[in-house]
Amino acid sequence: MRAVVIRDGGILVEARPDPEPGSGEALVRVRAAGLNGADLLQRAGSYPVPPGVPADMPGMEFAGEVLRNGPRAERFNVGDRVMGLIAGAGQAELVVVHERLLMPVPAKLDWPAAGGLPEVFTTAHDALFTQCGLQPGERLLVHGAAGGVGTAAVQLGRATGARVSATVRNAKHREMVAALGAAVLAPGDFVDAGPFDVILELVGAPNMRDNLRALRTGGRISVIGTGAGATVEEFPLGLLMARRGRIHGSTLRGRSLEEKALTARALERSVLPLFATGALRVPVHKTFSLERAAEAYDAFAAGGKLGKIVLTA
Amino acid sequence: MRAVVIRDGGILVEARPDPEPGSGEALVRVRAAGLNGADLLQRAGSYPVPPGVPADMPGMEFAGEVLRNGPRAERFNVGDRVMGLIAGAGQAELVVVHERLLMPVPAKLDWPAAGGLPEVFTTAHDALFTQCGLQPGERLLVHGAAGGVGTAAVQLGRATGARVSATVRNAKHREMVAALGAAVLAPGDFVDAGPFDVILELVGAPNMRDNLRALRTGGRISVIGTGAGATVEEFPLGLLMARRGRIHGSTLRGRSLEEKALTARALERSVLPLFATGALRVPVHKTFSLERAAEAYDAFAAGGKLGKIVLTA
Repeated sequence: MRAVVIRDGGILVEARPDPEPGSGEALVRVRAAGLNGADLLQRAGSYPVPPGVPADMPGMEFAGEVLRNGPRAERFNVGDRVMGLIAGAGQAELVVVHERLLMPVPAKLDWPAAGGLPEVFTTAHDALFTQCGLQPGERLLVHGAAGGVGTAAVQLGRATGARVSATVRNAKHREMVAALGAAVLAPGDFVDAGPFDVILELVGAPNMRDNLRALRTGGRISVIGTGAGATVEEFPLGLLMARRGRIHGSTLRGRSLEEKALTARALERSVLPLFATGALRVPVHKTFSLERAAEAYDAFAAGGKLGKIVLTA
Repeated sequence: MRAVVIRDGGILVEARPDPEPGSGEALVRVRAAGLNGADLLQRAGSYPVPPGVPADMPGMEFAGEVLRNGPRAERFNVGDRVMGLIAGAGQAELVVVHERLLMPVPAKLDWPAAGGLPEVFTTAHDALFTQCGLQPGERLLVHGAAGGVGTAAVQLGRATGARVSATVRNAKHREMVAALGAAVLAPGDFVDAGPFDVILELVGAPNMRDNLRALRTGGRISVIGTGAGATVEEFPLGLLMARRGRIHGSTLRGRSLEEKALTARALERSVLPLFATGALRVPVHKTFSLERAAEAYDAFAAGGKLGKIVLTA
């Protein structure tokens, strides 16, 4: 098979041996595979990959057709459209993955949308609902709402009855984030626009003190992105106590098979039906063929996009 | 009735009008009322009391006998031994309190123990179980374990199958905390003794960075005391994310009637039966008659005690 490979900080596409499905696993012919921030970190050599995952093969999500079931794999039939998270090596013509990690692709979604769905919607759903217990009618604030996880979170909040506000750093994306259903705030104005029940922090440390000020009593903050800084200077525990607040930190990639499988079940139950009704969509910025992966990475690194960059194969 | 009153930063005992029970409320003849840190803050004028509570009458917990039921109050009969949290004015011969906030006093407990139970065991149970979801077999670390909440937390963890470690600042209390069932650590050694599933922070900001280092993946931290400092100088969000950790801040006093009533139901269900079996006890350091309240406050302020200081009436 052809696969995206990292060598000396650059992206190549090379031939690699076809993987073989083991017990409980499916072999999937990949049709689309999204790029994520962690792929860039891996390209730079600064993302520790989990044990058993090749350090030189990036790719955390994919969509495609089941080619063959390994022994005792039976959830899907050959030819079924599936998608899912994978610990690595997802940007290749073939992947082998445990069938419990696979989800069916909603009929309405084309390959690029399906290939760019798992990572951002799993991350956003896990943060908003599994961690923060977002409830209908509550007020949600998404910091960094123009990114992949941010657009997923705005849509999920909106589709489930939350009242959604958002900060967007790049002014040119404000209109599109507003079109997704959020009241878009200037980054400096969010405290006065509070209080919020749930705050999704995708920007980082500089917001954290004001996040506590903007939090309603009993509010929850989920921190899953720290691009603007990871160290909070002078973090006020007294305010956290006064708010009776809760702060979650999380990452997806280091989780166990069973934890990842649970996120897939949560998406099947609560998120995929909302793609079928049209309440959710995957904004795809641009697709590149697998062979043009290096260009795709450069486009991703350039930033300023709204929506996913997806490799197609 | 006679009641403890704050005037000009000092403690007096004065006559005040007897309170009258309203709808759903009980009039209780107080037999014992514990002192808490918030009473000292109130004496110093730096504890904002909730609306409707006299700012000059301290006291957050009590135990006594039901003297009379107000209209539609029916949970308890006249003469029943009851105890509970109260928003203020608990250090008096009489209190009026909504019957949903009352709990029956376990038969084994004498008045001083009952009067010193509600605040610390409610705080500890809420933090460990309602907030942090402590599970049997998990490892619990209690910072500041020699205080009232700390000794309650060590006992609760031990009695419910958690493996309990503790730090104690005052060396002379280490043996007694160990006797409650905790492995006592020197304050600087706890990171090496980890990882811990749940950390109860009763000391404050100086521990927080090391708490994250000592936390197991998926671990929870509850911050309910900041006597040693409330501002974390450099709080590392990246470590919180890597641990997939959760930090709760909490206070008890500002909660609504229904929230406090829920904590009373939780104690009735999960904690009071463990006093009946002898698995839990209330360490009482010293009792003072109500008329000697000023001495009691000074003894509390002097610190260095292990166990509650309780007024008896």
